[in-house]
Amino acid sequence: MRLRNIPYAKEKLANHPELVILDGSVHKGAWHEVFGNSNPIAIEIGMGKGRFVIEMAKAHPAINFIGIERFDSVLVRALERGLEDPQCPPNLRFLHLDAELLTDNFADAEVTSVYLNFSDPWPKKRHAKRRLTAPQFLSRYQQILMADGYVCQKTDNMHLFESSLLSVNNYGMELLMVSLDLHNSDFEGNIMTEYEEKFAAKGQPIYRLEAKFAAK
Amino acid sequence: MRLRNIPYAKEKLANHPELVILDGSVHKGAWHEVFGNSNPIAIEIGMGKGRFVIEMAKAHPAINFIGIERFDSVLVRALERGLEDPQCPPNLRFLHLDAELLTDNFADAEVTSVYLNFSDPWPKKRHAKRRLTAPQFLSRYQQILMADGYVCQKTDNMHLFESSLLSVNNYGMELLMVSLDLHNSDFEGNIMTEYEEKFAAKGQPIYRLEAKFAAK
Repeated sequence: MRLRNIPYAKEKLANHPELVILDGSVHKGAWHEVFGNSNPIAIEIGMGKGRFVIEMAKAHPAINFIGIERFDSVLVRALERGLEDPQCPPNLRFLHLDAELLTDNFADAEVTSVYLNFSDPWPKKRHAKRRLTAPQFLSRYQQILMADGYVCQKTDNMHLFESSLLSVNNYGMELLMVSLDLHNSDFEGNIMTEYEEKFAAKGQPIYRLEAKFAAK
Repeated sequence: MRLRNIPYAKEKLANHPELVILDGSVHKGAWHEVFGNSNPIAIEIGMGKGRFVIEMAKAHPAINFIGIERFDSVLVRALERGLEDPQCPPNLRFLHLDAELLTDNFADAEVTSVYLNFSDPWPKKRHAKRRLTAPQFLSRYQQILMADGYVCQKTDNMHLFESSLLSVNNYGMELLMVSLDLHNSDFEGNIMTEYEEKFAAKGQPIYRLEAKFAAK
C-alpha cells in the first residue's frame, strides 16, 4: 500500500518508541526482551494500516505480534490506529523495515509465523521476484522461522494466488490449508484487513493458504 | 457420471473390439501392440461420454489415448459417439475399468499422462478416499506413469480442487501449472468436455492443475 507522503510521519514514528521500532537490527536474536516474555513471535509483512495485526494481537494475547511496513507514511497510519485504540495490547509492535532485510532483523528460528495479507501482486513476469511468495522471500522466511513455523497468505488476486501455490509447492513447502473462497468456508477466527472488508462486499472470493517448511 | 441402465450396452460394447477393450489386463505391459506403434500413451479416467478423449486423440495424433470408464451404460455413449464420428482416429481406445484396478491393467511407466476431468467430488469427508486425487489413487498413477509423466485435473468443484491441491502437494508432487479460472487464462489448446461447456456458460470458474511426481 502506498499513501501520499505525510510530512510529519518520520517525527511521529520517532516519538513513539513504545510501539514503533525504527531499527529492528539491534533486536535481532533478542526480540523477547522487547516484549519482556518468551512467547512466540508472529510477523505480518506489509501490514498497511495495521488493523489485522492489532486485532490479531488482541485475539491472541499469548503471541507477540510485529507488524512490518516499509513506507513510513503507511506505518504512521497504523501507529495512529494503535494510539487511538484504548485496548491497544502490550504484545504488539510496529517495525519499519523492507522485507528484503528480514534476516538482518530476525535471528534463525526466532519467528513462529509469517502473515502476508493482500500483498502487491506484481503482475508483470519481470517483477515476479518482488512477490512476497517468490522463492527469494520464502528462503528468508525459512531462515527466520522455527521448526513447524508457517506462512499464511490471504489475497483477492487470483494470479498472485496461482503464483503462490506454484512457488510454495516448488520450494518444497507442505501446504496445510488452501481455501479458494475463505469467506464462504468453515475457517474460523478470520480477522479481516481494511482492504478485505471492502473487497469482500463485492462478492469476489478471498483466497488463503497456509504452508510450512520441511523440517530443518 | 451415472446414466440409467442401458440394456443393450454390454452386447454393443462386446461387438466393437476395434474400439472397446473389455479386459485390459491382457494388454498390461503391451499396450503398444494394441495401437501398433510405440507412441506415448495418455489415459483419461472417468471419460463420461468421451468427447474430451476423442477430440484429444484427433488433436494429438502422435499420442495414443485410452478413455477409461467403469459404467458400461456410460461407456456405450462414448462408443456411439466414436462410431458416429467419421474422423474417429486410430490412436483411440475405450477401456472398461474401475480405476482402482489401474495397476492390474498398466505396467510400471507404461503411461505418459493421466487426465481427470470433472470427477466425482465425493464431498463428504468419509468418502475422501474415493476422490481421484486421494493419495491411494496418486500412488497408482505414480506406479504406471513414466518419469516426467504428469497428472492433469480439471474441475468446477472448488472443494475438490482445494482437496486436490493439498493432496498433490502433500504427496510430494511438483505442481507444473495451476489455473483458478481456466477459461479466462492464457492456457491454449483446452478441449472442453460436454459438462464443461454447459457449466462454463454459467460463468463460474473452471480449475485446472498439472503436476508430476518426483523422479523415481
